[in-house]
Amino acid sequence: MSYAVLGTGSVGQLLANKLLAMGHHVAMGARRADNEAATAWAKAGGERAKAGTFAQAAAEAEVVLLAVKGEHALAVVEAAGDALDGKVLVDITNPLDFSQGFPPRLSVCNDESLAEQIQAAVPAARVVKSLNTLAGPLMVDPGQLPEPTDVFVAGNDAAAKETVKALLTSMGHSSIVDLGGIDGARGLEGWLLLWTRLYGALGTAMFNLRLVRAEG
Amino acid sequence: MSYAVLGTGSVGQLLANKLLAMGHHVAMGARRADNEAATAWAKAGGERAKAGTFAQAAAEAEVVLLAVKGEHALAVVEAAGDALDGKVLVDITNPLDFSQGFPPRLSVCNDESLAEQIQAAVPAARVVKSLNTLAGPLMVDPGQLPEPTDVFVAGNDAAAKETVKALLTSMGHSSIVDLGGIDGARGLEGWLLLWTRLYGALGTAMFNLRLVRAEG
Repeated sequence: MSYAVLGTGSVGQLLANKLLAMGHHVAMGARRADNEAATAWAKAGGERAKAGTFAQAAAEAEVVLLAVKGEHALAVVEAAGDALDGKVLVDITNPLDFSQGFPPRLSVCNDESLAEQIQAAVPAARVVKSLNTLAGPLMVDPGQLPEPTDVFVAGNDAAAKETVKALLTSMGHSSIVDLGGIDGARGLEGWLLLWTRLYGALGTAMFNLRLVRAEG
Repeated sequence: MSYAVLGTGSVGQLLANKLLAMGHHVAMGARRADNEAATAWAKAGGERAKAGTFAQAAAEAEVVLLAVKGEHALAVVEAAGDALDGKVLVDITNPLDFSQGFPPRLSVCNDESLAEQIQAAVPAARVVKSLNTLAGPLMVDPGQLPEPTDVFVAGNDAAAKETVKALLTSMGHSSIVDLGGIDGARGLEGWLLLWTRLYGALGTAMFNLRLVRAEG
C-alpha cells in the first residue's frame, strides 16, 4: 500500500516511520517541496520514502494521513486539493486552542467538529476520523500499554472505514469501535476535553481508555 | 452519615436506595414536600428514610447529591438555597440538550461547565463533580463490570473531595482520579459527547472507561 503523511512534526514522523517499517511506500508532505524535515526524513528512509508538497505527497498515495496541528488542518487539505479526490483521508487532528493556556479549549466542538469541516472542505475525499484520541507513540505502538485499549473510527464512507480499520489492526490495535458517520468526530474531539485534563492529572500522555462492558 | 438526594428519578432512586442499604440516613428532596415519588420512597425505606422539599432534605444532610436533569440543576440548587451552605454538594448532572435529537448536544461546554454554574449559584456550597460519567446502575454497583474502571472528582474544596472519594470507595469504586478544581468538570461533562455516541455504538449504557497507563 502507498501512504502519504501530511505533516512533518513528531506525530507525522512517528506515523511515517511506522508505515515505512511495515513495508509500505510513504510520501511525507509539507507546505514546500524543499521542507528540511521532510527531505531529511525521505533521505534517511530509503527508496520507499519520498518527500514533496502536500499535493505531491497525496497524489501518489492510496491513503493519506493528516497529521498537522488542528489550526492548520483546513489550509493543508485545501493545499492538497484535487489530489485528495477519492482518497481515504485519515484525520488525526484535534482543534486545540492553547491561546488561553493549558488545558486548551477546543476551537470547534459540540455542534460541529474539525473533521466535518475538513470533509466539507474536500468533499471528494473519504474522510475517516481516527487516532486523534491517544498520544503519537501509542498510535503506532499500542503494545506499550499493559492491556488492550480502544481506538475509534468515524466517517461517511464504509469502505474507507474498513481500510482504516485494517491499517489500525496492522499497527497493533485490537479493539476498534465504529462511531458511525463523520459527525461521530464530535465525540472523538470532545474526548480531548477530558484527555487534556487526564494528561495533567496523571502526569503522562502514555495512557488510553479501555472500554469495559457488562457481560450478558 | 446523613445524605440528601435531590431528585426523584431513576438515578436519584438508585443512589438513595444504595445509601440506605449502606446504613445511612437519607432524605429525598423534591420540588414539593408531598411529591408522590419521594414520599412513596420514604415510606418504603423505613425509619432512616425521609422526604421533603429540596431545602428540607438538604438542611438535615451532611452530604447532598444532586441527581436531577441538567436543565433543572440550577433551579434546584437555588431552591435549596441556604440549606446548602457549607455542605458537600455532589454534582452528578449533565447538561444534555435533546431538543435536536440523539445524540444530544451539550447546553454548556468547552469554556464553561454546568458544575461551575452550580458552584457560582450556591457559592457557599462545596461542589464536587462526580459520577456523571457513567450510568446510574454502575454508579452504585461498579462490580457489575468485569474489570475495575475509573471514576473522577473535580472541585475547589480538597476536604469535600476527600469526603466524596470516601463515599465512592464505600460504593465499590476502586480507582478515583482527581481532576483538580471545579473547572475539571469541563472534561467530565465533555466526556458525554463521546459517552452518548458510545452508548449508540455499543447498544448499551452498561459500560465505563478504564484508564490504562504505560508502566515505568
